[in-house]
Amino acid sequence: MPQYNPPLRDMKFVMHELLHVVDELKLCPKHADIDEDTINAVLEEGGKFCSEVITPINLSGDAEGCVLDKTTHEVTAPKGFKEAYAKYVEGGWPALSCDPEYGGQGLPVMINQCMYEMMNSANQAWTMYPGLSHGAYEALHAHGTPEQKSIYLPKLTSGEWTGTMCLTEPHCGTDLGLLRSKAEPQADGTYKITGQKIFISAGEHDLAANIVHLVLARLPDAPQGSKGISLFIVPKFNVNADGSLGSRNGVYCGGLEHKMGIHGNATAQIVLDGAVGTMVGQPNKGLAAMFVMMNAARLGVGNQSLGLTEVAYQNAVAYAKDRIQMRALSGPKALDKAADPIIVHPDVRKMLLTARAYAEGGRALATYVALQLDKALSSDDEDERKECEDEVALLTPIIKAFLTDNGWIATSHCMQVFGGHGFIHEWGMEQFVRDARINMIYEGTNTIQSLDLLGRKVLGDNGKKLKAFGKKIAAFVEEEGTNEAMQEFINPLADIGDKVTKLTTEIGIKAFQNPDEVGAAAVDYLRVVGHLTFAYFWARMAKLALEKKDGGDPFYTAKLSTARFYFAKLLPETASLIRTARAGLQPLMEMEEALF
Amino acid sequence: MPQYNPPLRDMKFVMHELLHVVDELKLCPKHADIDEDTINAVLEEGGKFCSEVITPINLSGDAEGCVLDKTTHEVTAPKGFKEAYAKYVEGGWPALSCDPEYGGQGLPVMINQCMYEMMNSANQAWTMYPGLSHGAYEALHAHGTPEQKSIYLPKLTSGEWTGTMCLTEPHCGTDLGLLRSKAEPQADGTYKITGQKIFISAGEHDLAANIVHLVLARLPDAPQGSKGISLFIVPKFNVNADGSLGSRNGVYCGGLEHKMGIHGNATAQIVLDGAVGTMVGQPNKGLAAMFVMMNAARLGVGNQSLGLTEVAYQNAVAYAKDRIQMRALSGPKALDKAADPIIVHPDVRKMLLTARAYAEGGRALATYVALQLDKALSSDDEDERKECEDEVALLTPIIKAFLTDNGWIATSHCMQVFGGHGFIHEWGMEQFVRDARINMIYEGTNTIQSLDLLGRKVLGDNGKKLKAFGKKIAAFVEEEGTNEAMQEFINPLADIGDKVTKLTTEIGIKAFQNPDEVGAAAVDYLRVVGHLTFAYFWARMAKLALEKKDGGDPFYTAKLSTARFYFAKLLPETASLIRTARAGLQPLMEMEEALF
Repeated sequence: MPQYNPPLRDMKFVMHELLHVVDELKLCPKHADIDEDTINAVLEEGGKFCSEVITPINLSGDAEGCVLDKTTHEVTAPKGFKEAYAKYVEGGWPALSCDPEYGGQGLPVMINQCMYEMMNSANQAWTMYPGLSHGAYEALHAHGTPEQKSIYLPKLTSGEWTGTMCLTEPHCGTDLGLLRSKAEPQADGTYKITGQKIFISAGEHDLAANIVHLVLARLPDAPQGSKGISLFIVPKFNVNADGSLGSRNGVYCGGLEHKMGIHGNATAQIVLDGAVGTMVGQPNKGLAAMFVMMNAARLGVGNQSLGLTEVAYQNAVAYAKDRIQMRALSGPKALDKAADPIIVHPDVRKMLLTARAYAEGGRALATYVALQLDKALSSDDEDERKECEDEVALLTPIIKAFLTDNGWIATSHCMQVFGGHGFIHEWGMEQFVRDARINMIYEGTNTIQSLDLLGRKVLGDNGKKLKAFGKKIAAFVEEEGTNEAMQEFINPLADIGDKVTKLTTEIGIKAFQNPDEVGAAAVDYLRVVGHLTFAYFWARMAKLALEKKDGGDPFYTAKLSTARFYFAKLLPETASLIRTARAGLQPLMEMEEALF
Repeated sequence: MPQYNPPLRDMKFVMHELLHVVDELKLCPKHADIDEDTINAVLEEGGKFCSEVITPINLSGDAEGCVLDKTTHEVTAPKGFKEAYAKYVEGGWPALSCDPEYGGQGLPVMINQCMYEMMNSANQAWTMYPGLSHGAYEALHAHGTPEQKSIYLPKLTSGEWTGTMCLTEPHCGTDLGLLRSKAEPQADGTYKITGQKIFISAGEHDLAANIVHLVLARLPDAPQGSKGISLFIVPKFNVNADGSLGSRNGVYCGGLEHKMGIHGNATAQIVLDGAVGTMVGQPNKGLAAMFVMMNAARLGVGNQSLGLTEVAYQNAVAYAKDRIQMRALSGPKALDKAADPIIVHPDVRKMLLTARAYAEGGRALATYVALQLDKALSSDDEDERKECEDEVALLTPIIKAFLTDNGWIATSHCMQVFGGHGFIHEWGMEQFVRDARINMIYEGTNTIQSLDLLGRKVLGDNGKKLKAFGKKIAAFVEEEGTNEAMQEFINPLADIGDKVTKLTTEIGIKAFQNPDEVGAAAVDYLRVVGHLTFAYFWARMAKLALEKKDGGDPFYTAKLSTARFYFAKLLPETASLIRTARAGLQPLMEMEEALF
């Protein structure tokens, strides 16, 4: 069974040495008092919860899955999930970054980000129960009426109740404009909602007393398409005015999906049969309100794969040091053994280092974005809020798509390190691969993310957001331009920066003639820009490592070697991606549909 | 549930238009009489078996898996597997390419290759039962005593009995030199074999009356390592002199693995408890004898992923034409519908065309190698036999590793086309991905294949085999050098050919100083050479398509477009691979083991 050690040393490095989060948070009045010790203490405690409570039920949860009682429509999560959730609630973890007005601890999003990375390493399927809840909390916090907030937010903050996002229907996922669920206004101001939703994560379970479904549906007179969609709260149990639970609402689980992975999370078909709901936000503006939740969820999905990359790496390293098989091509290394540990083989190291570089690079980027999100939400400087908001908007699709594609590559490599044993359930490696696969699909497929990045975030504002981020990179390149030891990092960083600029311009010109050129280049483009962001953070981390490596802490030696590996073996992927992006639309559209 | 249409049109194109197999087989006296109609008729009939008999039990077989009765040690395969196998035997399919002396039909290996591609598309897990048997047949045919052959080969040819390869033990897979199973000689010339084997595909089941295990074990006085391993026949039921079944032998299934995929195939732990065996070939030469089987198996594994690539493509195309979601960025295409079919989106086409180009390129290469194998086995010209043998040796690790890596990429893309539905079992797409994953591991991991290619097949003979194959490419480049329409294919083909030559030389020089350089570059190198072979066959196919496309058959138009897609969007991967290969060993070895 896989083990998990929270990567606290690296998290502290990223937060305190690379990003100076305590100083940065001083710009936010509500976080001005937080100090390094508090942050570290929270994450140490959180790490214990992850490794001790939810790691041990990850493999068993996968084997067991969720069970629906078709008579009662109740779902039982795998053994231990309910008890672990009770401990999570008891520890106050759901409240970490929630608003103190509703019982939250008011800590920065950035800390929640690190906590969730660890939870995802430990048990992605379990983590989706609190994860979806937190998304519902955020949507209600942003768009709920004062009454809705006072009823629901305290319960979501404490974790007594959980939440869901009910968007997808059988005929529409990406294209929510096609959705059909209906909401009929009632005399008392509520709505009766009818329809069928699918793929509802954490949609039904036995972990909490109530489930707060956030449901997209159409009013009777709603315009067609995405401008006619409203958002509703539909609780599993109706809630009395005093907050106590009332009668069972007409929303129930009609079936559970049999999936490739995340077996421990109930992916429910949700039937709404005249269920009572109240509207959140304005009529027909539901999609916009739901986007608050979806943007947070997209960062969360990137974080899921970051967690899987880290835990897969840790277990593959342990195996590679232990398993003996063959001798090194350059001659025996472990003369006392019948064969060498497989970590002597260069390609085994390449697979391990790929996962390591993607995990550490992803952690730097994701923590940075979480910090920018804190500033976007809470800085007292309006310009800075706007600037950070733009940067988060730019980097969100990259975190979602680049980190999940990397997670797929990394978990598959780590599984490969195990040879045949990697394919066997009891070792747990193939579960990481299966769990990682959904992250490339949900909350907007990675193709949708790349269209969001290239079409909306980059070309949509004439490259303004990208240029602003590019300026930071250029400043760092300039600053280190005369530092000889940094040339091996700065030169390729500057080079990929130039190439992104050229590629963006080139695609922009083509897209002007045919908008489909955006769709042809977008996926390659996102990976190129993803590598640009990684190259930037890896160069910054290398700088710190160079400065500190002679102080005796081998952490910095390892960081420097991993940076070198990244630049030598991963960044060059951009050479091909730029070529295929530039090859454009024609090779994709030449063949008539009938000939496929 | 996925559907499967045997790609007979493309198979005929490859065999008759591209490779002229009938003419080529005239060089082999035993196949000199075969004609196009016979080949086509066999494959049409075989295709029916695949789509009608074993396709419908693929998804259910995955859901159901195999069941071991721990009391009797008997395994029951999923529902319908036994009946389908009976039909397979009844149809005479196991005998297709077997020796007529033992009841075989004596058809070329090349036909068997095409038949197996279709079987793998239809049901990889089921196909492994006859697949392993055929491997056992080949090893016994090459190395068995006349008596062993007369007893076992007719039964394996008819399919009455099946066979296995018992190599792996818990502590050794890649490194068989470490194996511990023991064979004690008995007074009657037999051996008593004791040990434990794991990961034995088709190791125990209810499809056939007897199972012929080919087991690697050590004689009491055997030298250590790989030079002390002998090969034995250990049947499940002892066989009387007249060929009838005798008593139950001491070989039984101790457990079944819970795996990521190929659930319908029993991956058995095989316990040998003083089981009676007879030796195959010479003492201590077992590994060499087993290699006959393993080389055939490696081609077979590449073929498994070729099959999965094809069937995943077919189903993703059907979905992409049917599913409507969003409008094309360049404006609505299906005005009569609420949204456009997703095949209008460039990235959906990119995913589909990737699978298509890998399937058709893989089919051309795999059929070519099968034909060369026929000539290596049966040509009456000794020089040609040797030449073909060399080529098969060179291309075998490419087929195994390049086709299985491509299969992983392609099945994952095809699953992605389905969005969330791709992750759900009932659609069958995620099964293709899970089944495809094992192909990168077993019969020698893809890292081992790449070491075999670069270390043994290329550098091991100073590039002789590679140069011989390169000459064919150079001749084609020369021949088409003045054909203007072919420049878009010939120029990049010539370019990648040059780059392979340079890269090979460069690695060879480095490896001379440090043999670990081979291990550092091998995986990237194999993919580069894989692309060289694909570029060669795609250029040859493009030539035919250019010649014939105006004749009115849209098959050639599609072929030409797919060739263009391959050169524009897939071949450029080599730009990155060459860079990372050249980045060499240092970035992999710099970090001390303890710092991982």
